[in-house]
Amino acid sequence: MNRRKEIVSRLIPHTTGAVLDSATAFAPVNIALAKYWGKRDIELHLPVTDSLSVALSVGTTTTLYQNTHQDVIELNGSPVAESSPFFQRLTQFLDLVRPSPSFRFRIVTHNDVPTAAGLASSASGFAALTLSLNRFFQWNLSAESLSCLARLGSGSACRSIFPGFVLWQKGDRDDGMDSHGIALPFSWPELKLGILMASSTEKPISSSLAMKRTVETSPLYSIWPSVLEKDLRELLETLETKDFSRFGSSLERNALTMHATMHTASPPICYWLEETVHYLHTVWHAREQGLQIFATMDAGPNVKILFLASDELHVRSLFPQMMEIPLRS
Amino acid sequence: MNRRKEIVSRLIPHTTGAVLDSATAFAPVNIALAKYWGKRDIELHLPVTDSLSVALSVGTTTTLYQNTHQDVIELNGSPVAESSPFFQRLTQFLDLVRPSPSFRFRIVTHNDVPTAAGLASSASGFAALTLSLNRFFQWNLSAESLSCLARLGSGSACRSIFPGFVLWQKGDRDDGMDSHGIALPFSWPELKLGILMASSTEKPISSSLAMKRTVETSPLYSIWPSVLEKDLRELLETLETKDFSRFGSSLERNALTMHATMHTASPPICYWLEETVHYLHTVWHAREQGLQIFATMDAGPNVKILFLASDELHVRSLFPQMMEIPLRS
Repeated sequence: MNRRKEIVSRLIPHTTGAVLDSATAFAPVNIALAKYWGKRDIELHLPVTDSLSVALSVGTTTTLYQNTHQDVIELNGSPVAESSPFFQRLTQFLDLVRPSPSFRFRIVTHNDVPTAAGLASSASGFAALTLSLNRFFQWNLSAESLSCLARLGSGSACRSIFPGFVLWQKGDRDDGMDSHGIALPFSWPELKLGILMASSTEKPISSSLAMKRTVETSPLYSIWPSVLEKDLRELLETLETKDFSRFGSSLERNALTMHATMHTASPPICYWLEETVHYLHTVWHAREQGLQIFATMDAGPNVKILFLASDELHVRSLFPQMMEIPLRS
Repeated sequence: MNRRKEIVSRLIPHTTGAVLDSATAFAPVNIALAKYWGKRDIELHLPVTDSLSVALSVGTTTTLYQNTHQDVIELNGSPVAESSPFFQRLTQFLDLVRPSPSFRFRIVTHNDVPTAAGLASSASGFAALTLSLNRFFQWNLSAESLSCLARLGSGSACRSIFPGFVLWQKGDRDDGMDSHGIALPFSWPELKLGILMASSTEKPISSSLAMKRTVETSPLYSIWPSVLEKDLRELLETLETKDFSRFGSSLERNALTMHATMHTASPPICYWLEETVHYLHTVWHAREQGLQIFATMDAGPNVKILFLASDELHVRSLFPQMMEIPLRS
């Protein structure tokens, strides 16, 4: 904790203690196209590799107030129990930035992600919290510093500071000051994303634990950094050229490679459920028939599909249950 | 073909043309514990790595006769069409060993593998054919030479020449004369194998094509040889010590690694179906509950499970649909 706190004190050196009555900020959910998979520093959430994401139009909106006596958190209109892991994780992050040890917050946070979409909200959540803290305390931090700060809450939160396509450069420094998101100057209005839900009855292990076990035990993990580097290069090239077929192949292979490293961990980690495999086969079969549609997956059983606006009707006929979520690109 | 024929002429140098009226031989199906995955020589079926298998009690029985005018093949009581890939593949193999170009065979072959088990019969088929040819022509070949000859029909057939645990040493020679099976002096009567069928409606690509595409396009394939070497070493050690937990972990990881290389091929190759994933999760869940049960898979959707005789009732209660096939170990 001291190391994290020391880094935060360098990021926000001008804290005066003056606060607004309240401050509100929004941050988007982001979907990784080249995945963040493996930490070189677990405490500071410093990644082994760069990663690339695109922001969605949905995310988290958070409003901050000062409170007396104790921290209070409301999530989507309901109070969050102090004993919950969510409460613990947020207040531990707040410990890093309180102007004095006794300073307490009231946090009102709202995820406009459809609950059924099963999208992780920790990235948008910590990004929105960071952005609202910046306003609340009038830090006027740079986007890079905000990204570094959000990363200390949740690694991929550093990408949710920005809209559009975002590169999280891994950085080389031990203190992580160069490990933050960078907004990329690409726009691709024709790009569409849909979510295919796989209902899980079993609770899978957390992505953080899955990442750790994979790094420690998968015989395939050693090759991940070089795979990612190649996939990322292709993705950046195709964001330039808008070659959707190569773009899609690269992001799909990247996701499958991440899952391959999990499948070969000891014990194996397999987020794929029966529906997952069904969706993947449907995507691949449609592609064999000529439809340009590609899949990506995170540390969970749902499948995200990417396609072009011109194919939307075709894709909807294949996947009537698809939940389309507009990109914020 | 000339290169294959030249090698065969060195393997069977003493052909006199004298034949028996008929000759019959049996060869077992074998299940790879450390997989054959990737060829260093496609024409001679020379592998990139060693592999390890165990023989089943079921297999192929083949009887040979000389015939006039044309080759005739009967499979499980029915004539095989000349135009079928099966007929073509067998007669091309026979072309390598005919004492004269006009010599024709009648081949009566029977697979006692339950059809529903979906076990590949090309390995036991080419091994039984090779063994029956050896008797028919009274070549009196060594087991190693028979194994090399069978390999020219189908790579893994070289392991089906032997019962029990068999190591296929990859060999180093360009002509493959040192690439053959070796019977290992291990016995493990407590070891049991069951097959869990996944019904496939789609026709997957052949294992041979899957292997080729994986070697050529998977970013993970480069690490396969070193993974296999480690898994094989552990399997050989545990065949000695009978540490079933380590034995099972190694063979399962080996199979999952092979499938991981396929999943990351371009385009992806995924033999997993919905039932496959269901079976795998059931195996892993049972193992978390303390049951020593491990899965292996070949280039298809079925799951083979390995367990000890003492757990058979427990395993049967989990998988009432399991087809147990005795090992020939």
